[in-house]
Amino acid sequence: MMEQRMGAMAVRTAGPGFTDLSGDLARWLGDNDAGDGLLTIFLRHTSASLTVQENADPDVLADLADALDRLAPRTHPYRHGLEGPDDMPAHIRTMVTATSLSVPVLGGRMLLGTWQAVYLVEHRDRPHDREIALHFSGTVTAQS
Amino acid sequence: MMEQRMGAMAVRTAGPGFTDLSGDLARWLGDNDAGDGLLTIFLRHTSASLTVQENADPDVLADLADALDRLAPRTHPYRHGLEGPDDMPAHIRTMVTATSLSVPVLGGRMLLGTWQAVYLVEHRDRPHDREIALHFSGTVTAQS
Amino acid sequence: MMEQRMGAMAVRTAGPGFTDLSGDLARWLGDNDAGDGLLTIFLRHTSASLTVQENADPDVLADLADALDRLAPRTHPYRHGLEGPDDMPAHIRTMVTATSLSVPVLGGRMLLGTWQAVYLVEHRDRPHDREIALHFSGTVTAQS
Repeated sequence: MMEQRMGAMAVRTAGPGFTDLSGDLARWLGDNDAGDGLLTIFLRHTSASLTVQENADPDVLADLADALDRLAPRTHPYRHGLEGPDDMPAHIRTMVTATSLSVPVLGGRMLLGTWQAVYLVEHRDRPHDREIALHFSGTVTAQS
Repeated sequence: MMEQRMGAMAVRTAGPGFTDLSGDLARWLGDNDAGDGLLTIFLRHTSASLTVQENADPDVLADLADALDRLAPRTHPYRHGLEGPDDMPAHIRTMVTATSLSVPVLGGRMLLGTWQAVYLVEHRDRPHDREIALHFSGTVTAQS
Repeated sequence: MMEQRMGAMAVRTAGPGFTDLSGDLARWLGDNDAGDGLLTIFLRHTSASLTVQENADPDVLADLADALDRLAPRTHPYRHGLEGPDDMPAHIRTMVTATSLSVPVLGGRMLLGTWQAVYLVEHRDRPHDREIALHFSGTVTAQS
């Protein structure tokens, strides 16, 4: 029988960069006795975003950050500047990446590929408290 | 017990720009007695797309439109030109944004962040009738 | 009553380009007696990705490939080069497209628009075996 579980996750970022959520997501699935189903991850912000990317070479993440910088340069004369020169680029970087992601789950584990991790990408200069809403639907294992 | 509801939504666009769907989506959830669950929004087109973005300063939307224009310029010598100079840029802008989005729902309300709205982005020059397919799974409140 | 079905799909790519998954996805839904619900497609790789795009003029796909090449040029001096000059551009192209997609299903058929197809986009130079995880939740038709 299908059931669902909902939850929230808080992530403190240290400024621009990638935070690997995979471990916390796996723990949340475990805490909720998730069996087989689908996990949806939704980020409640417009100046940070989600992506599934390589978990091996940290140079990949640095190159991805550079790529986002080229796609949405800080130096462009944006209309929207009240919240600082890092804000409008952050919205554009959010637009070209993901705000929601859904990952199938089998036997309580996300079906990520060998080299995949789920990352939160902070696009603002300063550290931020970011909120994630989680939804799991599927089977839930018997609880003692 | 989990149930599901499906539906369709028609959106008339006025040419290039952002249409805020959040109010119509909230109404659809209400009309369907949605409780807790997951709402999936799917846009049935390849020259318009979805994004979750800031709902406050309209300058943000204008800057996002400019950014999409720089990422997929109209002036590029595309192969595909039969449907007009705005069509191929529209496909590229669709590719780098979203066609489907999933948003957790709690107590009948989407768990959008304070500054988030769900937008349909029209990429073609002329007004278009756009179709959205909706899917909600979760609890449904008792109906009198 | 809502049920779910999970599955896997293997796709052999022939190097860079678009593989239309729509037919195989339709067959998988049929084989699983899917009725009404939601199909989620998750690609288990970080150098290939998913997109919903036009199924009519092949020039569109060639122009989309060119656009990805401009957004993530091979000639950029990336840090990450150990896996070849096509690897880092592949990660960037994955980041700006999709790793997961969810499509509503009605009467066993995905609610794709007339001109939509679901594509796997190979970003590496060589042919690759790609794995897709599938999740359907919804009604399942009676089986004889």
